[in-house]
Amino acid sequence: MRVHGVPRRTIALAADGWAVEIIDQRHLPHRFVVERVETAAQMTQAIRDMHVRGAPLIGVSAAYGVCLALRADPSTASLLAACESIGRARPTAVNLGWALAEMKRALQNEALSGPERVELAYRRAAELCEADVEACRALGEHGLGLLQRTTARGGRLRVLTHCNAGWLAAVDWGTALAPIYAARRQGLDVEVWVEETRPRNQGLLTAWELEQEGVPYRLIADNAGGHLMQRGEVDLCIVGTDRTTRNGDVANKIGTYQKALAARDCEVPFWVALPRSTFDASLDDGRAIPIEERDAEELLTLTGLDQRGELTAVRLAPPGTPAHNPAFDLTPARLVTGFVTELGLCSPPELDGIYGGARA
Amino acid sequence: MRVHGVPRRTIALAADGWAVEIIDQRHLPHRFVVERVETAAQMTQAIRDMHVRGAPLIGVSAAYGVCLALRADPSTASLLAACESIGRARPTAVNLGWALAEMKRALQNEALSGPERVELAYRRAAELCEADVEACRALGEHGLGLLQRTTARGGRLRVLTHCNAGWLAAVDWGTALAPIYAARRQGLDVEVWVEETRPRNQGLLTAWELEQEGVPYRLIADNAGGHLMQRGEVDLCIVGTDRTTRNGDVANKIGTYQKALAARDCEVPFWVALPRSTFDASLDDGRAIPIEERDAEELLTLTGLDQRGELTAVRLAPPGTPAHNPAFDLTPARLVTGFVTELGLCSPPELDGIYGGARA
Repeated sequence: MRVHGVPRRTIALAADGWAVEIIDQRHLPHRFVVERVETAAQMTQAIRDMHVRGAPLIGVSAAYGVCLALRADPSTASLLAACESIGRARPTAVNLGWALAEMKRALQNEALSGPERVELAYRRAAELCEADVEACRALGEHGLGLLQRTTARGGRLRVLTHCNAGWLAAVDWGTALAPIYAARRQGLDVEVWVEETRPRNQGLLTAWELEQEGVPYRLIADNAGGHLMQRGEVDLCIVGTDRTTRNGDVANKIGTYQKALAARDCEVPFWVALPRSTFDASLDDGRAIPIEERDAEELLTLTGLDQRGELTAVRLAPPGTPAHNPAFDLTPARLVTGFVTELGLCSPPELDGIYGGARA
Repeated sequence: MRVHGVPRRTIALAADGWAVEIIDQRHLPHRFVVERVETAAQMTQAIRDMHVRGAPLIGVSAAYGVCLALRADPSTASLLAACESIGRARPTAVNLGWALAEMKRALQNEALSGPERVELAYRRAAELCEADVEACRALGEHGLGLLQRTTARGGRLRVLTHCNAGWLAAVDWGTALAPIYAARRQGLDVEVWVEETRPRNQGLLTAWELEQEGVPYRLIADNAGGHLMQRGEVDLCIVGTDRTTRNGDVANKIGTYQKALAARDCEVPFWVALPRSTFDASLDDGRAIPIEERDAEELLTLTGLDQRGELTAVRLAPPGTPAHNPAFDLTPARLVTGFVTELGLCSPPELDGIYGGARA
């Protein structure tokens, strides 16, 4: 997608061909900052502290983290240690473990020389990166059909999304927003209700993305989504996911469950965009998905631009204010209308056949 | 209730016996600022710009606004003009119109001399003020019984509330928090999940109140309430209301509807604390309740303490970012377990008999 009109991905190799360049998303929407990452430890920190975020991008970032570890030490021990430490950075998105398992499978061969292993690591990471782009593109095309059918009812199509599942959450295109970008290119009249997504305000990333692409949108408080559905102002909800299990239970950003409840109550279709890398074939249902709890301080301070245009952190409540900050929640399959996958649309009962079956 | 251990109400006459002192709640939880209000226009602004907020307090503030108007000009024309202009300050809370109607009824008598009308206005405003304190106290006692019964299931009672319906929203005691303060005085082990309540963050007022009273609490994002209910970490929800109709439809702060949906899905009781002044006997159901839409800028900027401890406004998104900011939503009666009223607990179908019947 584009930043100030220039095509851009969220992650790419630097000009030197080995270091990794990421967008440090903590500074958006205020500043567009590219960060150079040279070590696996730096990449682990970038994932943990959310310089990069979004399930697909976390996966690709982890793969490149392995490359950086092997460049410093190409041994099998180094590979395993890197996978172990990067794997602990964040618990909920299954893409992290998935990408590390892919890297391990490709690189664990003891017969590889050091230089061979490093070269293969970069090649495999690049493949995962391209596969993510292709998955999101395909998912966008399938989702376009869904939007076209919904639009056929007439007038502007009003889509609600929670958090950021756009290209900033992936390598390119995004998941939940990929159909919207595809629709926009087809000339569909689509507007997006963008939920702020406290406490990390990823809705501001979504607003920034949509602004760059010229897609009409309006920012709303997380509290307002249900009210808009009740008033008939939402035609369709679409969100991403950090991990979805075989029965169709969806772990996604905290607040998604409440939105799915409102959608059901108001008879608004609730769709989840799901690349294969986010499908967890090892879990029958969502009960065992670990839900990350983040620092309560995320609720108590907030960064924005002050009057002089400088990035300033302000404190919303006194230090030590008791707070609790779960980062994800679980939307049961019964509340999900369907999934937009790389292979087409499907209902929750069909999901395992599409991704689980294909895997087996 | 108390501020730094000293008993305090949200509104009172100044020492001179005619000006009105309010707590300018825009500065909380950072600064405790008392504002002196001398004219009806100042009071209208204080209501509109939310120096004072909360349905019961808005009503009492409006009554004192009429007193200030009459002190400047005690004519009937002045009375009617004041009621007209104050009445337009905010649309959703029925207490505003209710208090103004009470004042008009008491003061419209053409036989009153100017000084008589002024004196009667202050007397009637004081009565409304005391009636609010008594209503909230009674409501708290009835709610205490509810909490005691819920606690009987064992262990710490975990109550979730949205927005601020504590004493800062009334003259004293509050509505939704009144039972909690009563419970605390009885030694019940109660903890409150306090929802942030974007975009105005009234949850920070609730946290500040509970801190002053020594009630354990934890602040959460509005997105987290449903997740906590799903995890069995909420025993009961209780919220206030800005207007409730004869059938039990509840207008309250934006986001309440989503919480009620989660409560039903998770089989958590969902109670609404409702003084008589917030009951709208003129409406059969909630469809005709006007839902206030506030300036979108409320979503885009935020005030907190910077590193030097100074109140600083920061911008979360660029100026002109499209946003939409409805301030209230409607929770249908079917999602309400019951009402905590001044006269006892009741179910939605019983409500009209309690308040509507008593009025007729």
